[in-house]
Amino acid sequence: MSDRVAIAPVTRLGPGERRHDQDLVAIEAPLSVELAQANRADVRSLGMLMRTPGDDDDLVLGLLHTEGVINRATDVVAMTRRASASGTPPSTVMDVTVATHVDLDRVTADRATVATSACGLCGRLAVQGLDMLAGRARAPDVPGVSPSTIVSLPDTLRAHQAVFAETGGLHAAGLFDTAGRLLVIREDVGRHNAVDKLVGAALRAGWLPADDRVLAVSGRVAFEIVQKAVMAGIAIVVAVGAPSSLAIDAARAANVTVVGFARDGRFNVYSGIERIRPA
Amino acid sequence: MSDRVAIAPVTRLGPGERRHDQDLVAIEAPLSVELAQANRADVRSLGMLMRTPGDDDDLVLGLLHTEGVINRATDVVAMTRRASASGTPPSTVMDVTVATHVDLDRVTADRATVATSACGLCGRLAVQGLDMLAGRARAPDVPGVSPSTIVSLPDTLRAHQAVFAETGGLHAAGLFDTAGRLLVIREDVGRHNAVDKLVGAALRAGWLPADDRVLAVSGRVAFEIVQKAVMAGIAIVVAVGAPSSLAIDAARAANVTVVGFARDGRFNVYSGIERIRPA
Repeated sequence: MSDRVAIAPVTRLGPGERRHDQDLVAIEAPLSVELAQANRADVRSLGMLMRTPGDDDDLVLGLLHTEGVINRATDVVAMTRRASASGTPPSTVMDVTVATHVDLDRVTADRATVATSACGLCGRLAVQGLDMLAGRARAPDVPGVSPSTIVSLPDTLRAHQAVFAETGGLHAAGLFDTAGRLLVIREDVGRHNAVDKLVGAALRAGWLPADDRVLAVSGRVAFEIVQKAVMAGIAIVVAVGAPSSLAIDAARAANVTVVGFARDGRFNVYSGIERIRPA
Repeated sequence: MSDRVAIAPVTRLGPGERRHDQDLVAIEAPLSVELAQANRADVRSLGMLMRTPGDDDDLVLGLLHTEGVINRATDVVAMTRRASASGTPPSTVMDVTVATHVDLDRVTADRATVATSACGLCGRLAVQGLDMLAGRARAPDVPGVSPSTIVSLPDTLRAHQAVFAETGGLHAAGLFDTAGRLLVIREDVGRHNAVDKLVGAALRAGWLPADDRVLAVSGRVAFEIVQKAVMAGIAIVVAVGAPSSLAIDAARAANVTVVGFARDGRFNVYSGIERIRPA
């Protein structure tokens, strides 16, 4: 058992059954991100995430990248984790120092105007909008993926999910090569966090942009997942669940391939069919 | 077909199959909320939501209530929807005028410090924290629900979901009485939005607080769902999916019953077992 799972007492009820037991549940806990710069005195809050502990460095690095704050891993000079002085339950704070060339003013000003109850900065991009994503469109001359590879991704993802099998409570995101080999997988109670952790890990490994890689997610694909893929330079997104209308619109604007309902040997292609090889 | 569903061209691939078709997808679109007060000149942005159109009034009313901005429906004096002047795609703005006794200063100040990428103000409550939820704890002397009622809720919810069957893309939230009768159901691409829409509808109907009612959700139950139930005065939450650790912690602190994995005639009780009647 990892620090991503907790034991919870539970009463299980079923036909003719009522018994006390223990259950494993996915941990959800707050992480605040504080941004500072070597040449400035002030510290700015990027806000707070509800996330599953583990891979916090990847999460923060990925978040900063998918939100357009940093372009490469070395834009972050230092990252230290500490316990917050106040709060119940105690919160964790990640102190991040970014390089002097990072434009923190712009970032924080944007953020302050778009606090959202849904998924943070996805709101900003939605308004400013699809134009911005279009400016980052990937060339369509990537190798492409075969249908047999696509149908294999969900099984591979599931087989490598450490925590889901125990709790049923975590989303997974995996980065694959076009032959279907898993490069890295990350899990979280929030699907956007799982993708940010993955992007952080990939950025650190020097794999981004990765337009010859495939991002596979265990759930649905809403706008913010496509947005994060675009910001990370990933051209193919495969989801086990359904896409939203805006995810498809964004994918078309940014020339990203979106596959949905990848399960039971079948899948639907909603955009970028040219990256799907003939069977 | 409603304004909650769009038609998307799709290519369906499967064993020996590759055909063009049309698919129905759940609509995801931005909604900005602007708060004003009759006696003040300034307008404050509550931020932007990515939501499924429909029941926007309920959504905004519910959000304002679950975030502690308003206590009753009449705290909102006026609500008007308009198209935003800029942005791609065009965004919708909800202009909300609240009564003069509503404390907007406190609200907006809190918000500005906790912009989050996960689910907005849930962050604030998590830090400030479980103490605040505990202050709102419901008395445990509610009627309670029978196991047979609980196992019936997911089927009833699913049977009344208008859009999920078409798109596979929407979360549902339903409010039930303790006999398992569905009072109101709302759907959204975001599970927190589905709950906010439900809370808004219930607040408007004069049903809140509703500690003799059951909130059933089609997905997992994370912290923010319990938080919203507590703020709405709902004492029993039943989820088809898994609970997170913090959802359970919050439910125990606030004396809310949390049931998870309600499916196939079985369920797990993670907190508040005293509200589950003997079979």
